[in-house]
Amino acid sequence: MTGPDDAGRFRVEGTSGRARAATLRLARGTIHTPCFMPVGTLGTVKSLTPGELRDAGVEILLGNAYHLYLRPGTRVLEALGGLHRFMGWDGPILTDSGGFQVFSLARINRIDDEGVTFRSHLDGSLHRLTPELSMEIQAAIGSDIRMAFDECPPGDASPGAARTAVERTLAWLARCRARHEALQDAQRDAHGDAHGDAHGDAHAGGGLLFPIVQGASCDDLRLESVERTLAMGEWPGIAVGGLSVGEEKEVTHRVLDTIEPALPSDRPRYLMGVGYPDDVIEAVRRGVDMFDCVAPTRNGRNGTAFTAEGRLNIKGARFASDPAPLDETCDCPCCAGYSRAYLRHLFVSGELLGLRLLSLHNVRFLIRLTSRARAAILRDEYDRWADDWLATYRRGSPRPATEQEGEDGPC
Amino acid sequence: MTGPDDAGRFRVEGTSGRARAATLRLARGTIHTPCFMPVGTLGTVKSLTPGELRDAGVEILLGNAYHLYLRPGTRVLEALGGLHRFMGWDGPILTDSGGFQVFSLARINRIDDEGVTFRSHLDGSLHRLTPELSMEIQAAIGSDIRMAFDECPPGDASPGAARTAVERTLAWLARCRARHEALQDAQRDAHGDAHGDAHGDAHAGGGLLFPIVQGASCDDLRLESVERTLAMGEWPGIAVGGLSVGEEKEVTHRVLDTIEPALPSDRPRYLMGVGYPDDVIEAVRRGVDMFDCVAPTRNGRNGTAFTAEGRLNIKGARFASDPAPLDETCDCPCCAGYSRAYLRHLFVSGELLGLRLLSLHNVRFLIRLTSRARAAILRDEYDRWADDWLATYRRGSPRPATEQEGEDGPC
Repeated sequence: MTGPDDAGRFRVEGTSGRARAATLRLARGTIHTPCFMPVGTLGTVKSLTPGELRDAGVEILLGNAYHLYLRPGTRVLEALGGLHRFMGWDGPILTDSGGFQVFSLARINRIDDEGVTFRSHLDGSLHRLTPELSMEIQAAIGSDIRMAFDECPPGDASPGAARTAVERTLAWLARCRARHEALQDAQRDAHGDAHGDAHGDAHAGGGLLFPIVQGASCDDLRLESVERTLAMGEWPGIAVGGLSVGEEKEVTHRVLDTIEPALPSDRPRYLMGVGYPDDVIEAVRRGVDMFDCVAPTRNGRNGTAFTAEGRLNIKGARFASDPAPLDETCDCPCCAGYSRAYLRHLFVSGELLGLRLLSLHNVRFLIRLTSRARAAILRDEYDRWADDWLATYRRGSPRPATEQEGEDGPC
Repeated sequence: MTGPDDAGRFRVEGTSGRARAATLRLARGTIHTPCFMPVGTLGTVKSLTPGELRDAGVEILLGNAYHLYLRPGTRVLEALGGLHRFMGWDGPILTDSGGFQVFSLARINRIDDEGVTFRSHLDGSLHRLTPELSMEIQAAIGSDIRMAFDECPPGDASPGAARTAVERTLAWLARCRARHEALQDAQRDAHGDAHGDAHGDAHAGGGLLFPIVQGASCDDLRLESVERTLAMGEWPGIAVGGLSVGEEKEVTHRVLDTIEPALPSDRPRYLMGVGYPDDVIEAVRRGVDMFDCVAPTRNGRNGTAFTAEGRLNIKGARFASDPAPLDETCDCPCCAGYSRAYLRHLFVSGELLGLRLLSLHNVRFLIRLTSRARAAILRDEYDRWADDWLATYRRGSPRPATEQEGEDGPC
């Protein structure tokens, strides 16, 4: 196992314009960027096993502090040795802090400088989440990358509300760091050495803390958020939150264009909640390295497949007797083993196997997409490759595909 | 590929009391009895892939003519090369004739000597199923064992209704055989040789026709049904229908005890719709070789797991922090990879992976159970083994577990 001294080492191996191909070393494995992280909200990427994800080339998963705090709870996670052991995934895990969820999903009771009081979306029970508690939950989960607890204003927030969120997020970041460091120290003391547990326990190598840039659609505020975050010290990576939450794509792109020059080139950049294929391609062009989204699995459960020639809804009557695979160019078990006619039959009949197979295909599609993007960057041909890829993909897609994709939609 | 000349060869390799261990050769593979057949109603064993079933030791699946006729329809199945190719399962398939479904699921419009007019349970559309059409549907499916179209009276049928059903089933059997033989001849002519299609197409080796014994709970009628069926000629196997449809277990056992001496010892016997572990054990004791049931998958989707120590509902709060696997003695991927605590979390959270893992475990449980029964028969220790097994299983099961398990319940 890689020792914690190496964890966080980020090496840029090639660039093409602003696009970067890099590796990020983590205690449980090295990830290759551009990197797509499937979302395992509740300790499972919906309908898929860890083995299937590994075989699909997934290097890192995302979990959610908010959800895992409510179910199964930190006591169960600690008793079972952390999330990796609990769910049977021994690769890296990144956890969201709960910020996005308490602002988008829970019923907010009160936000103050101390934290957020909210009612659970499950049973209405009252809870209070603070920067400190978020770090404690993420430590109990044992994730490899932990996100700072941030205030996420709505996409159409006023400049005043956006500023308040930026200020609060910065103040909370300092508290997150203090608690994170204390937890790391306590863990090192408990283990008595710096190499974690040879049995691969949940705490191997500790976790890296990533701050989150906010600022809604205000360029100045976004830049200020970046600069003041960086002024607080060294970070192993930096995330961009509060984008792709309903604003126009042009706004997302403009914000990314604005902040990119201010971001350290030697640290990974993570664009939170983005993961439609075309959005990934455009963000990689703007210097983003890491992505997560429920798009592959949620679309898969709804019968929508990503293909090289665009999005396709398998329920369409035109597929009733179609012997072709979903995507001729794909190497996933779904495309290797089943026809569109069969997949359509499964969806029309409400069969669970359909959800599974399309989810698996879509995950594999994103993994192959980011691998191919990486290869194009290493050849220094990213822009041309991306333009060609987008032209083919968009020709076949029924309509622009950016939707708000929180981790928490209906099954 | 085994040629059709071998198909149907049944060899009894050992007996223990009335229990038998045998092999049945079919065009697409040899099955070892006692044999459990998972139910793939609509061309999928719910939530599982063919590869998982193969890895679980499944040798033969069941499909349903009624369901597949309605969705995707015979035209699609024929266009895609039959059910095997459609669903990606290259082992043997047995198809039910549709008799059970039109009597239990569809809205019957009229039963006459010619056939059954019914309305689809899906959209109310009007259909007419006859013995001839049932054989044509099963030929389009391309199944390896095809069931005669029978009249299935309710479990509490009057003696008069039971007799009518027996008479009609016998009359329909003659018509099934005539059409089946005509279809087989036509297929042989079309292929130009007796060895099917080297590419493993749906019609490889044709299919065997099994008659179905009816007679409700009347011993005399059951015996008469057996004798008159056998008087019609040689059959490659014989099925017992209309049992385990709500009657007391003692009645099931008494009927099996009554007819067993009259059944040919050199042909496989198939008890339709039975598949709870304890019911399988008791029926094997009474000379039954083949079983099918939705119990493993339906129970799996409801959170109920079969274990050596009885049935267990994983949703129970007592499993919240239980690090043990579902069943310590099981070798399935669910038991190898996951704790009860995790499985409970999946069910409590409504996660699809839970249904998958419990379904897989339960199928593997039935396959291991019939394998162990076979081994006990070959050692000529069946009764003792069965008594021990049942004592341990029943001690841990909350209540007797026989329920009507048609193929068609809610997901």
